[in-house]
Amino acid sequence: MKRVRIVVAYDGTNYHGWQLQPNGVTIESVLNEKLTELLGEAISVIGASRTDSGVHSQGNVAVFDTENRMPADKICLALNQRLPEDIRVQSSEEVALSWHPRRCACVKKTYEYRVLNRRIEMPSCRLYSHFCHFALNLERMQAAARCLEGEHDFKSFCNVRTQAEDTVRTIYSLSVTRNEADMITIRVTGNGFLYNMVRILAGTLLAVGMGRLQPEDMETILAAKDRSAAGPTAPAKGLFLINIKYGE
Amino acid sequence: MKRVRIVVAYDGTNYHGWQLQPNGVTIESVLNEKLTELLGEAISVIGASRTDSGVHSQGNVAVFDTENRMPADKICLALNQRLPEDIRVQSSEEVALSWHPRRCACVKKTYEYRVLNRRIEMPSCRLYSHFCHFALNLERMQAAARCLEGEHDFKSFCNVRTQAEDTVRTIYSLSVTRNEADMITIRVTGNGFLYNMVRILAGTLLAVGMGRLQPEDMETILAAKDRSAAGPTAPAKGLFLINIKYGE
Repeated sequence: MKRVRIVVAYDGTNYHGWQLQPNGVTIESVLNEKLTELLGEAISVIGASRTDSGVHSQGNVAVFDTENRMPADKICLALNQRLPEDIRVQSSEEVALSWHPRRCACVKKTYEYRVLNRRIEMPSCRLYSHFCHFALNLERMQAAARCLEGEHDFKSFCNVRTQAEDTVRTIYSLSVTRNEADMITIRVTGNGFLYNMVRILAGTLLAVGMGRLQPEDMETILAAKDRSAAGPTAPAKGLFLINIKYGE
Repeated sequence: MKRVRIVVAYDGTNYHGWQLQPNGVTIESVLNEKLTELLGEAISVIGASRTDSGVHSQGNVAVFDTENRMPADKICLALNQRLPEDIRVQSSEEVALSWHPRRCACVKKTYEYRVLNRRIEMPSCRLYSHFCHFALNLERMQAAARCLEGEHDFKSFCNVRTQAEDTVRTIYSLSVTRNEADMITIRVTGNGFLYNMVRILAGTLLAVGMGRLQPEDMETILAAKDRSAAGPTAPAKGLFLINIKYGE
């Protein structure tokens, strides 16, 4: 038996998120189905990030065990031939049988949240960004972002339905940039994120950009340890899981 | 009566191009239908560029005449409320009754052709770029692009079904750039383009990038005045009409 790690990119538009659901097609259900077909045995993948319905990925990580003798690095292309065009495995490789994508002490996850900020929506951006027609103040958003970097208790930035007991996380970097096509990208790297944390960070930075919150409010929001202190949860379609790096 | 000019952005994925077709929904048919509803009289738009099926736009231009007293600049937002989300009018303004989007001596059109150049397709790019897994040589493509700038007879870069008698056009600039996300953008500005010309330019530059043609071949291809001398027509989904500027 061997354990195979795959890096999975997907367009989340037409999926009910990563995790198996009683109703609705998920990334996990499609991967299990196609890997089971390809390898001729029942396969169950274990994912690193159980992204929500509508969230996109350029580099989620998953593992599965197989008895099949197909070389691990050949699985990538063979699997892509069976997958729908909105899921593409970027790589496949053998890892130690003990390796687990959610039980690594040293991990860095990077997400991007994209906001199209102009007067009128651009149709070719609508599936992969949140549209905001209020003029956003980039400098204010950047000032607020700086207050959120570092190790903090992010309880205020966590969906109340969470099960996490420990809500302390470290954000290594949180940047806000704008390109010439009016796209604002909020890019965040951290050692882990609470349920909905990146979307709440984005919604809070948007509120700062619109002037509804002040950059200085970030300290008060963190200290409150209360979800209602932060801004709204930004829509799923603007969120991309960019990559997950393991310090191995 | 007044004449109104609109700038129209659309995601061409689900349309049979701009121009009215006996079968199939087109951008023109949707605009006519929704403007007729909005203004309470039969409206027929005249478009500047009759983009092909599957081609996208950030700034096509069209005009129509109306007796309705709604101020021209208010039509933009009112129309967007009726349009499907893959079409968005960016602006609307009154112009002279004599103004025509295809009868202006001085016009600059800019198109972009996008190619995702990496080993494996990225699902979130698949609708708005052509995927090419052969490694493309950017310097070669740039050298070939330089040979195509200026005034030339572009008959070799024109679909043979064209009706154009005069195939001389001027390309003001033709650039090839690559970003950190493996996206190659071919950006071309000219005084007009023949049928399929931008897609044939893109297909020819791709052939140069792959080594199947040499940058020096561009002169021979231009001189041949024969469609079969140039490279293939690149797929529609990578093409964006960026803007049309009128020297008024």
